[in-house]
Amino acid sequence: MHVLDDKQWFTEVADIAGSAFSLRYRRKLHQERSGFQTIAVYETEHFGNLMVIDGFTMLSSRENFLYHEMLAHPVLLTHPAPRRVAIIGGGDCGTLREVLKHDGVQEATQIDIDERVTRVAEDFFPELTACSRDPRAKLLFDDGIKWIGAASAGSLDVIIIDSTDPVGPAEGLFTLDFYRDCRRALANDGMLVQQSESPLYHLDIIAAMHQDLDRAGFGAVQPLFFPQTIYPSGWWSATMASVRAPMPDFRRAEADALPDNEYYNADIHAAALAQPEFVRRRLAGLASSN
Amino acid sequence: MHVLDDKQWFTEVADIAGSAFSLRYRRKLHQERSGFQTIAVYETEHFGNLMVIDGFTMLSSRENFLYHEMLAHPVLLTHPAPRRVAIIGGGDCGTLREVLKHDGVQEATQIDIDERVTRVAEDFFPELTACSRDPRAKLLFDDGIKWIGAASAGSLDVIIIDSTDPVGPAEGLFTLDFYRDCRRALANDGMLVQQSESPLYHLDIIAAMHQDLDRAGFGAVQPLFFPQTIYPSGWWSATMASVRAPMPDFRRAEADALPDNEYYNADIHAAALAQPEFVRRRLAGLASSN
Repeated sequence: MHVLDDKQWFTEVADIAGSAFSLRYRRKLHQERSGFQTIAVYETEHFGNLMVIDGFTMLSSRENFLYHEMLAHPVLLTHPAPRRVAIIGGGDCGTLREVLKHDGVQEATQIDIDERVTRVAEDFFPELTACSRDPRAKLLFDDGIKWIGAASAGSLDVIIIDSTDPVGPAEGLFTLDFYRDCRRALANDGMLVQQSESPLYHLDIIAAMHQDLDRAGFGAVQPLFFPQTIYPSGWWSATMASVRAPMPDFRRAEADALPDNEYYNADIHAAALAQPEFVRRRLAGLASSN
Repeated sequence: MHVLDDKQWFTEVADIAGSAFSLRYRRKLHQERSGFQTIAVYETEHFGNLMVIDGFTMLSSRENFLYHEMLAHPVLLTHPAPRRVAIIGGGDCGTLREVLKHDGVQEATQIDIDERVTRVAEDFFPELTACSRDPRAKLLFDDGIKWIGAASAGSLDVIIIDSTDPVGPAEGLFTLDFYRDCRRALANDGMLVQQSESPLYHLDIIAAMHQDLDRAGFGAVQPLFFPQTIYPSGWWSATMASVRAPMPDFRRAEADALPDNEYYNADIHAAALAQPEFVRRRLAGLASSN
């Protein structure tokens, strides 16, 4: 038994690593059981509001910019001209907000299975959800796997998979079948990006995703790395894949021209592509079908 | 009051951010009060051995490579030809081990105030301390501030300040006076690097250090960023300064030729130089004497 102190703490344990991250809070602002999961919101001491789903930290006011900027901007500035974007998951609208910073985007459709995530975010993260009034934004509350399966072939330029961990409702988003459906829904210069867990704790997941995207017919796959304090290990990744090979270079000048970023810029984009030695060795050992 | 579970946990609270990081351990292997501080070692479940000084995590077997590689290699591959290196602090010998991977280094002197740190590391981190048998290594147990103050002018090529946080014994290592002494002890193409805390939690420290190094007569100052799971926020920095301006480019080919790295390579070096937008804006606002 371990006692932190006499204050109130929210703690997420990462069993795989025997580690835990905790935030001290002033009060619990909200808790509900939606049709899919338990959603809670805490007012923390120094991280603003914290949303927790099924006991896992999802986002904090203070540092969600890291994740949301890195999920949206690298893929959108690598695709040559993204117009039609789908976000699978992402109910808090943080990724949507970043996507809508790109003037060339004509349609951004967010498909989250749980409408309650969006409604709770409207109450406690209004700075993220305000963007949903943009006429280019379309919010659907539906099963993202089925939605992608039913999408017309070649109808999307970019798919962003902004999901919870690969256990529970999001499990089907980390499968070869889903990646094949994504590939089919994408146009010939299409691209995809998916959050892919911690480099330090979940290298197996990153490697498996890399291999499955390759098998699903993507021409090039590339991981991205960035810090994320409230997620296990404080270090996170996303994995980007393009139908065409090689993956195009990103548009540096546009990267530095994006407004109101806290983390992302052209140098940070280039930096996120660098592979730590232990990652490079692991990914170099994967069989490629290309 | 908050209870993690019925296992044994080591927890470090970061009061400045109302956050905490915990590691589950099987047993406490060691604890002593040295003349300077309290040193403890835990056998954790998934991070190997963990050394804790005065309640702050210092290093774990699993991920100390991040910090040690990033403290040693960028500065040594940016200086044109480092031969004489001093490490202030660093009693666990992890930085020393990385420094000795550089064939051009002829003398690496480690000056830690507390011999017990090294003796405890010999017992619980022998993979780090084994390098101290290298004939180029010299271990001194002395006050690093006094040692630098007494060093002959221009007698060092690189100074690496591998200290604890800027409270307690290490406080004097984060001062303008100390940086002036370092500047004096360095040759005309000399360089320095110092651990500089978390970008998310301690941007004030990074900015102050930047400004003080500038005032102390260094020609160029450059922060480095890297993940470090067991340190507060999981995201860490070091600050590099060179006597000459501009700072030279680093030697890419040699960076990729260094043996046995887990994190560092040439791409990672370049990546560590990228400044997040919120850091770039803050540092751009500092007055420069150059």
